[in-house]
Amino acid sequence: MSPQQKESLAQEAGTLFRRLFPICRSLTGPGVRQSLEILREVAFFHRHEIPSGTQVFDWIVPDEWRLKRARLWDDQGALLLDSDQNNLHVLNYSIPFDGVVGFAELDPHLHTLPHLPQAIPYRTSYYTRDWGFCLSHRQYEALDRAGRYRVQIETELAPGILDYGDCLTGAEEAPREYLFSTYICHPSLANDNLSGPILWVLLLRALQGRRLKNRYRFVIIPETIGAVAYLACHGHALGRVQGGYVLSCVAGPGILGYKQSLAAFRGAPVLVDRAAMTTLAELDLAHRIYPFDIHGSDERQYSLPAWRIPVGSLHASKYYEYDEYHTSLDNLDFVRPERLVDMLELYLMVVEKLERNATYRSLLPQSEAMLGKRGLYPATGGSLMQPAAAALADHGQRRFLVDAEKTLHGSRIDAMLWLMMLADGQMDLLAIAQQTGIAFSALADAADLLCCHGLLAVAQEES
Amino acid sequence: MSPQQKESLAQEAGTLFRRLFPICRSLTGPGVRQSLEILREVAFFHRHEIPSGTQVFDWIVPDEWRLKRARLWDDQGALLLDSDQNNLHVLNYSIPFDGVVGFAELDPHLHTLPHLPQAIPYRTSYYTRDWGFCLSHRQYEALDRAGRYRVQIETELAPGILDYGDCLTGAEEAPREYLFSTYICHPSLANDNLSGPILWVLLLRALQGRRLKNRYRFVIIPETIGAVAYLACHGHALGRVQGGYVLSCVAGPGILGYKQSLAAFRGAPVLVDRAAMTTLAELDLAHRIYPFDIHGSDERQYSLPAWRIPVGSLHASKYYEYDEYHTSLDNLDFVRPERLVDMLELYLMVVEKLERNATYRSLLPQSEAMLGKRGLYPATGGSLMQPAAAALADHGQRRFLVDAEKTLHGSRIDAMLWLMMLADGQMDLLAIAQQTGIAFSALADAADLLCCHGLLAVAQEES
Amino acid sequence: MSPQQKESLAQEAGTLFRRLFPICRSLTGPGVRQSLEILREVAFFHRHEIPSGTQVFDWIVPDEWRLKRARLWDDQGALLLDSDQNNLHVLNYSIPFDGVVGFAELDPHLHTLPHLPQAIPYRTSYYTRDWGFCLSHRQYEALDRAGRYRVQIETELAPGILDYGDCLTGAEEAPREYLFSTYICHPSLANDNLSGPILWVLLLRALQGRRLKNRYRFVIIPETIGAVAYLACHGHALGRVQGGYVLSCVAGPGILGYKQSLAAFRGAPVLVDRAAMTTLAELDLAHRIYPFDIHGSDERQYSLPAWRIPVGSLHASKYYEYDEYHTSLDNLDFVRPERLVDMLELYLMVVEKLERNATYRSLLPQSEAMLGKRGLYPATGGSLMQPAAAALADHGQRRFLVDAEKTLHGSRIDAMLWLMMLADGQMDLLAIAQQTGIAFSALADAADLLCCHGLLAVAQEES
Repeated sequence: MSPQQKESLAQEAGTLFRRLFPICRSLTGPGVRQSLEILREVAFFHRHEIPSGTQVFDWIVPDEWRLKRARLWDDQGALLLDSDQNNLHVLNYSIPFDGVVGFAELDPHLHTLPHLPQAIPYRTSYYTRDWGFCLSHRQYEALDRAGRYRVQIETELAPGILDYGDCLTGAEEAPREYLFSTYICHPSLANDNLSGPILWVLLLRALQGRRLKNRYRFVIIPETIGAVAYLACHGHALGRVQGGYVLSCVAGPGILGYKQSLAAFRGAPVLVDRAAMTTLAELDLAHRIYPFDIHGSDERQYSLPAWRIPVGSLHASKYYEYDEYHTSLDNLDFVRPERLVDMLELYLMVVEKLERNATYRSLLPQSEAMLGKRGLYPATGGSLMQPAAAALADHGQRRFLVDAEKTLHGSRIDAMLWLMMLADGQMDLLAIAQQTGIAFSALADAADLLCCHGLLAVAQEES
Repeated sequence: MSPQQKESLAQEAGTLFRRLFPICRSLTGPGVRQSLEILREVAFFHRHEIPSGTQVFDWIVPDEWRLKRARLWDDQGALLLDSDQNNLHVLNYSIPFDGVVGFAELDPHLHTLPHLPQAIPYRTSYYTRDWGFCLSHRQYEALDRAGRYRVQIETELAPGILDYGDCLTGAEEAPREYLFSTYICHPSLANDNLSGPILWVLLLRALQGRRLKNRYRFVIIPETIGAVAYLACHGHALGRVQGGYVLSCVAGPGILGYKQSLAAFRGAPVLVDRAAMTTLAELDLAHRIYPFDIHGSDERQYSLPAWRIPVGSLHASKYYEYDEYHTSLDNLDFVRPERLVDMLELYLMVVEKLERNATYRSLLPQSEAMLGKRGLYPATGGSLMQPAAAALADHGQRRFLVDAEKTLHGSRIDAMLWLMMLADGQMDLLAIAQQTGIAFSALADAADLLCCHGLLAVAQEES
Repeated sequence: MSPQQKESLAQEAGTLFRRLFPICRSLTGPGVRQSLEILREVAFFHRHEIPSGTQVFDWIVPDEWRLKRARLWDDQGALLLDSDQNNLHVLNYSIPFDGVVGFAELDPHLHTLPHLPQAIPYRTSYYTRDWGFCLSHRQYEALDRAGRYRVQIETELAPGILDYGDCLTGAEEAPREYLFSTYICHPSLANDNLSGPILWVLLLRALQGRRLKNRYRFVIIPETIGAVAYLACHGHALGRVQGGYVLSCVAGPGILGYKQSLAAFRGAPVLVDRAAMTTLAELDLAHRIYPFDIHGSDERQYSLPAWRIPVGSLHASKYYEYDEYHTSLDNLDFVRPERLVDMLELYLMVVEKLERNATYRSLLPQSEAMLGKRGLYPATGGSLMQPAAAALADHGQRRFLVDAEKTLHGSRIDAMLWLMMLADGQMDLLAIAQQTGIAFSALADAADLLCCHGLLAVAQEES
């Protein structure tokens, strides 16, 4: 991407953050519907509905939750907390309550963070019927322990709808499909999780504009119950899915990271892991590798024994790894739209690997190819090879990010020599990239070029 | 074990040390018989006899050796060495000798340790007929080089019996059997090897009092020739043996250690290795891992190509690793009965792993289990789960060491989530413990609980 | 080898260096023929010829190149460069040229090394028809930019012959064959590559004098085109070749090294790698391990998919790793004949491993062997075992380098015990040497001895 493209995308992401942030979302309800519609302005995807009460495996789709307003007053009538000020103030999925209570009765319904006294925590009570407020510990400490308080929680919990969206893009008949899943259920929290849906929709739009070899499944759901419901409704159709990613926490200022799939945890990293880790490694970016963990996002559902879909996730400030996580401090000041665009670029490089990785076999296995007679060897060392660049352009192989200058540097010869040496169908391009240190794109370009010259052929598209 | 139980066991171990230490043992002879009878007061095991001259594979059971007394006087009639003072003074298996000799003739029959001048070495001459004395280098240096000496070695070497013992405990029809082997052939030496038989008999008694899933074979023999003879007599019956341990050097003050099996040396640690190493690791005890070595104890025989029984050993002051080894300094002052009881506890934790290790399969593989509706998820974070504890108690699953408090801590939820995620019959509990860092007992308890709730089933008892 | 033998070999190597160094070699031509004949004075090998124009896979054998003389004069008639002074001055494979040119026309035909201003570079133009001179950057800087220059390059490029040699030695009907390949195409350059052919011919002579279990194929060719041609002519006959070595850069003063085979690069080191690396490790010599690289020597051809012959190379000052590489500074002052003899000794130790490596099976698998009754166990600790030495001598097993003292040290017992323990046909001697740290020769001698005593048998000769 050019700096101009990135700048323009960052502005678009910033606008989406500002429009979506104030909406009160939850597992269900009007906030989710409103958010999905805003995202559908960026790229088309389908919307689906599941009624409350539907059994999805071990779970039941809950009643729909609608927040009108939640307020707390002291006995002088001063308004202390108001969900219109910050929707984190109300315990998510709080039942309605209206009454005057003493502090002792109120206290168990108040949630604070003593170690982060200025932050309002994000708390939910999806499956235990309870009411409550979340507030900063400073506010909490100022409350009169002898006072009485007016509570008015205007919420509604009634049969309704669980909303979600999905979209298939890429090659419809492709034998291989990859999953990009995100969740949309957090209220006014920016990095976790508003950054996920914004990256998700930008990536969806980017792929919708391309001719692709694989099929890509984009899923946007409320976390956990949504993934369970999605698998209950669509699990039978996921047979082609080779792996995927959960888009979550992708715009924070902290370190980049990759959380590995369960397959990697069990000692056998798969294509989604290798594509992500090679991308981070070849860009020489500081990053952390996190092993699969039973705590996390919807990879937990996709990874279960019945599905065993290997799912990883690239992060900028991963959940659990920053103090502001799940508090009012994870707000629009915390996230960086430019960072989200960097992550979009990373995911596009990952997609390039999913698209272009393959094993090859040599059509000239007996001797080194005489590259010179094909114009593939520099007449004098160090110069660019125009015939090579031309041949490549002719065949329209250069669909991805890497610019021509980078591809045509000195490692071109090395890339060709390594490919001709290793091309017996055993090592795929990602393995060769990892072992030789040559950039994946350079190898893939060299492979395309050698194929054009009849020296190499695809042995197997990689799964 | 409670502190009271440990204290009481330590006293019992101390008494056994004091009763057994003075007895002069060897490969054969009355000292072995007397020692076996004292051990049989603690726990029942069978006694067996093999006559001298019996061919056992490449070896022949030697004549029985009986020591009456061995003494050395100077020419003034002063008694210099007396086996009644310390039975290490006589070369073990010394032939009888009676006569007066000059220093030059005596000298080749004297064994000392110049680098440890106050210690009497332990020396044997089982298969080369010789007589001799062992003495401290200080005593040796004080001998008059011009003097003459009266030697009186009253020993008897004649056809007799090689004595050994064994016992099977646990489930008679179990498909899997584990071996606990120790040796009883050293005279007055405390850590190597009196500690071995004492731990062996306490462990035998502990297991005799339990309902067990596996069968356990307890063997007590003189070292090397006894193991060869045992394999010659019982090798045909060892088909169910999956592995085992040699109990040796388990009461010293030095560092804990585990000597791995030959299987681990060849790159594939087996259950006995994994159970021992996980136990040491999860207790976070400082310890050393020793690779299998061709020098050692009876694991050498059990590991030979015809048997390939993987045998390891846990140690407190391993042989070869302390200066006092095989000298008069390895005495009752060197060993610590409390240490032996710690090792008993370690071995019981190892046995817990041999008993409880298994792979599981999920009965709810499609979605995360809704733990809350089963009372398995805390209503408020951090509290203990009484229903879980009750369910467990009802099913009588808690047979082992770990106390209830430890089992029911916060990692219970994690243990359940990991088990439900990984339960496809591939990783056993030990592998999950190692990969996740969750204590084995907590995992095994959680597995039992999930089985009670119909969420999990045993896929395979582990061998 | 004794110091006298090594001294004598070093003198012979020195003489060969001095005779061969001045000759102007190239891919083809009289210099190659003259060099081959000098080498044939040391050991017999066959000579072969391939005519120019022959198609060998993707390549065509080029015209033969003959240098008469190449000279450059300034306009005062002073002789500036003369190939009779140093044959590096002429661009190797330069076309003939005769004329007077200005500096601007001359300049693109001059090759220098600005970073090594006193050195004449070695440059070739085999497949692009060009003329040129190589000179030190100091000479180049002194040239008058306004002057005119007389160029007289007296070369001939015409249909002729590509010469090469080969020889089979060892057991004609052996199922396993190993390759020793070197190249002979560099002009006056000492370490790369004159050291290669000299070591090659000395090793050939050493093996010709021995009774061997394997067959050894010795090949001497011009680099790249020669290897391609050799494979085109003889590839069908290489089915028994298990691996081999390229002899190159073996007399420099720099660090020892081993460049691994492609098999090792792909994660599965084979016998040629293991033999070389174990040799370096057990001599405790400082050395570097270089992974296989697509740049190098003729291992590139042998390793291609059609052949996949695993080829490594031991080095003293490996190509690319010393500043003098491919310059006039890689001369007779740079190389050390004694170093070449050290490398000969290393390669002979490698050959010992190729010859003697095997897996064994125990003929006494049930119990430790009673070594004492066979005279294999020391009566008193530490003494040499004369019966063992005698038995070994009787059977004529000691064919290689290691002297009797070294073989018969204390590790003999350990070697025997380990062999009897591990002898189930799984680990070969090299693996046992690596795992136990016992020298390969000691293990092989112990195995021979145990075979003599009927305790061990060969399970499989190793490939």
